[in-house]
Amino acid sequence: MTQPLSPQEIEAMLAKANQPSAEALRLHPYYHGKVQTVPKVPVRHFDDFAIWYTPGVAAPCRAIAQDPALVYEHTNKGNTVAIVTDGTRVLGLGDIGPKAALPVMEGKALLFKYLGGVDAVPICLNTKSAEEIILAVRLLQPAYGGINLEDIAQPKCFAVLDALRADPAIEIPVFHDDQQGTATVLLAGLINALRLTGRTLQNTRFALVGMGAANVATVRLLEASGVSLEQIIATDSRGILHPGRDDIARSAHEFPDKWRLCQESNPERRTGGIAEALRGADVCIAFARPGPGTIQPEWVAGMAKDAIVFACSNPVPEIWPWEAKAAGARIVGTGRSDFPNQLNNSLGFPGIFRGALDVRARTITDEMCLAAAEEIAAVGVERGLDEEHLVPDMQDAEVFPREATAVGMKAQEQGLAGLTLSREALYAQADAQIRAARELVHLMMAEGAIRPVPTL
Amino acid sequence: MTQPLSPQEIEAMLAKANQPSAEALRLHPYYHGKVQTVPKVPVRHFDDFAIWYTPGVAAPCRAIAQDPALVYEHTNKGNTVAIVTDGTRVLGLGDIGPKAALPVMEGKALLFKYLGGVDAVPICLNTKSAEEIILAVRLLQPAYGGINLEDIAQPKCFAVLDALRADPAIEIPVFHDDQQGTATVLLAGLINALRLTGRTLQNTRFALVGMGAANVATVRLLEASGVSLEQIIATDSRGILHPGRDDIARSAHEFPDKWRLCQESNPERRTGGIAEALRGADVCIAFARPGPGTIQPEWVAGMAKDAIVFACSNPVPEIWPWEAKAAGARIVGTGRSDFPNQLNNSLGFPGIFRGALDVRARTITDEMCLAAAEEIAAVGVERGLDEEHLVPDMQDAEVFPREATAVGMKAQEQGLAGLTLSREALYAQADAQIRAARELVHLMMAEGAIRPVPTL
Repeated sequence: MTQPLSPQEIEAMLAKANQPSAEALRLHPYYHGKVQTVPKVPVRHFDDFAIWYTPGVAAPCRAIAQDPALVYEHTNKGNTVAIVTDGTRVLGLGDIGPKAALPVMEGKALLFKYLGGVDAVPICLNTKSAEEIILAVRLLQPAYGGINLEDIAQPKCFAVLDALRADPAIEIPVFHDDQQGTATVLLAGLINALRLTGRTLQNTRFALVGMGAANVATVRLLEASGVSLEQIIATDSRGILHPGRDDIARSAHEFPDKWRLCQESNPERRTGGIAEALRGADVCIAFARPGPGTIQPEWVAGMAKDAIVFACSNPVPEIWPWEAKAAGARIVGTGRSDFPNQLNNSLGFPGIFRGALDVRARTITDEMCLAAAEEIAAVGVERGLDEEHLVPDMQDAEVFPREATAVGMKAQEQGLAGLTLSREALYAQADAQIRAARELVHLMMAEGAIRPVPTL
Repeated sequence: MTQPLSPQEIEAMLAKANQPSAEALRLHPYYHGKVQTVPKVPVRHFDDFAIWYTPGVAAPCRAIAQDPALVYEHTNKGNTVAIVTDGTRVLGLGDIGPKAALPVMEGKALLFKYLGGVDAVPICLNTKSAEEIILAVRLLQPAYGGINLEDIAQPKCFAVLDALRADPAIEIPVFHDDQQGTATVLLAGLINALRLTGRTLQNTRFALVGMGAANVATVRLLEASGVSLEQIIATDSRGILHPGRDDIARSAHEFPDKWRLCQESNPERRTGGIAEALRGADVCIAFARPGPGTIQPEWVAGMAKDAIVFACSNPVPEIWPWEAKAAGARIVGTGRSDFPNQLNNSLGFPGIFRGALDVRARTITDEMCLAAAEEIAAVGVERGLDEEHLVPDMQDAEVFPREATAVGMKAQEQGLAGLTLSREALYAQADAQIRAARELVHLMMAEGAIRPVPTL
């Protein structure tokens, strides 16, 4: 995509990008929601309720009361994830509140099931307080095998995630998809882009544009991969991070990662904006604000040879791919499905949680995320790597069970798994669960249990 | 059932009552849970995710942010109920905790769907504090159309329910099934028992045995039906309630209903135990502790002619039905499905919530419960009333949509409904939703999406 589009083509493309909105507004009220609760067990006749409810159910209850670990045997806890939000940073829409966040959480639950075979439940909290979100997760954990935090504003999201991951009373994985999930998929694309351009993580200079949840998590994953902060120059909306950034120093308790970057990244002590950050960089990772024009072509021209540009804002990337390419970038990735190299968190969380749940992992570590990223990248290599195909497509039937297997094996290796399973068994189980979920949807569609989309 | 069973027959019956336990222990781990999350919308191809998730989903989110009432149009909130427990009083098992409570909550969710077409989500809270339960419900309400409190110990359950029903910040119905649901079904049986014995609610003397959640709620519903507390004599584990009960006076803030009964019921100022309470009573309503022998036959013999005995403890009623009959009771009801006149709360909550949700009721009032009770009783009359058939069977296809219609009409009459619907429309909608839920289960069973029960 080195050819720029004409203004007409850009207009047509943006109009096409708006088409799902019109369909969404037409179809959401038609279906009245996107997920429902359905039995997992047969009801042969009403007598079966004596098994599933009183008096029979007392026996599994007693068994769990005796040995709490049996909750994983007698219930669906082990396959259920709570999607927890306060609705303060929903998509690019900002603080629209917990009710307006519900369509996104239901959509996420749909993806969890269809892509990962995971039963997810939307939990939209009527609060903006970090303390109450933390308390809610503590209160909620008995029925769930994992917690997926979603669309919580920064800096609150850092405090919430860090507090819950550090809390010894939390027995189940707590994951913030906007941080860890997004960074995992970004890293998968990065690994293959470095591979294509003959770089290693250790000899690469990174420019990070925007210091929100995604890039803070990206820094964490880069560090866990062996990247030194000295290889990084980061910018936020006020410019390059350096030790003289008093504004960040003053809020260091809320933004500890940013303050650490001020002190330890950017050893040349550069100052300035995105242009200065990009000068000589091998890789630009932007999760900043929608473009075009957030990143100027001449700034990309100042990057190193064979530059890699990930411009991930939606709906419009910080720079159009053809502009970045024309300015000298060799590889460009965005968040959009209609450009090459879509780096979309949907490629990550369903497989990551599938794997974490299948081995009953106590947490999801950075190393487990790295394992997922490497596996996504490996599938990409197998499918045939080139500048426009860094990562596999979401439709790739293998990618989610492969990720799940990588995550589950890493959890076992780190001593964080409640179950021991071989690689083969893990893959087979993940694959079977994902297939079953999809077959159920298709069965429901074929038999009218999900009504067809009404024609316009 | 005036014939007593032989000791062998009783033993065989109790063995049969234990059979569901063995099946439950075998089958719960086989299915790993009883409910799952499943899509309500088609996935024709992966492009549909652009409608159900980003970018399309932003449009319904924006619409709800502008007009919060639209959350009912664009999501499943309006058909979703949270089943909230702290696991402190699960079945007859007591305080077994939130994990051990999960099999019951999943079973309840199964009943909600199969009997009422309602999507229910188990919420098992890791707390025993009334304040934290109340806070959790306040935090959780955005995603749900109603809250079903379940298996919370008394007196906490009274404080929690009363606080939430009185809280102007709670926009959705909060219902405690162990109180309101159980009392509704009891009242349905009572209405028809009075009908059969030529009594009216106003000329009947009641003896209440046990003052837990169910009988406290029964008193409330009796009062709402026009019964005066002076018609009631109540007992708890220490005997008859009267103004001299200093033990209750001291905990009056925790047991306000009991203290009011001490002052206003039992105008003769009787003292003593169950025997004294039953003397001359027309109706005995026992939710006390499992028998047999909790209520002695000679005490029933002291009741009025054509006495009505509801002995509702499980698994063994306070008195065997044949003993009560031999002692002179004309009508006996229990909680068991293998005796006549099963008074089971499963006959109530699915229809009550179906109706409350379908008109978007802001609360579930005692009057709405009464309407449900009267409708259950009316269906019983239509099916043919006699001493052994007070209420319809749970398998009666009409009873739940009939209840839902009665509840929905009452909510509209009381000005508590968010939607206006005719009786016919309400019935048709409730009936269609319940049918669809059952058909889906049967489809899944027929097509192998729910595996058959493995043979022993």
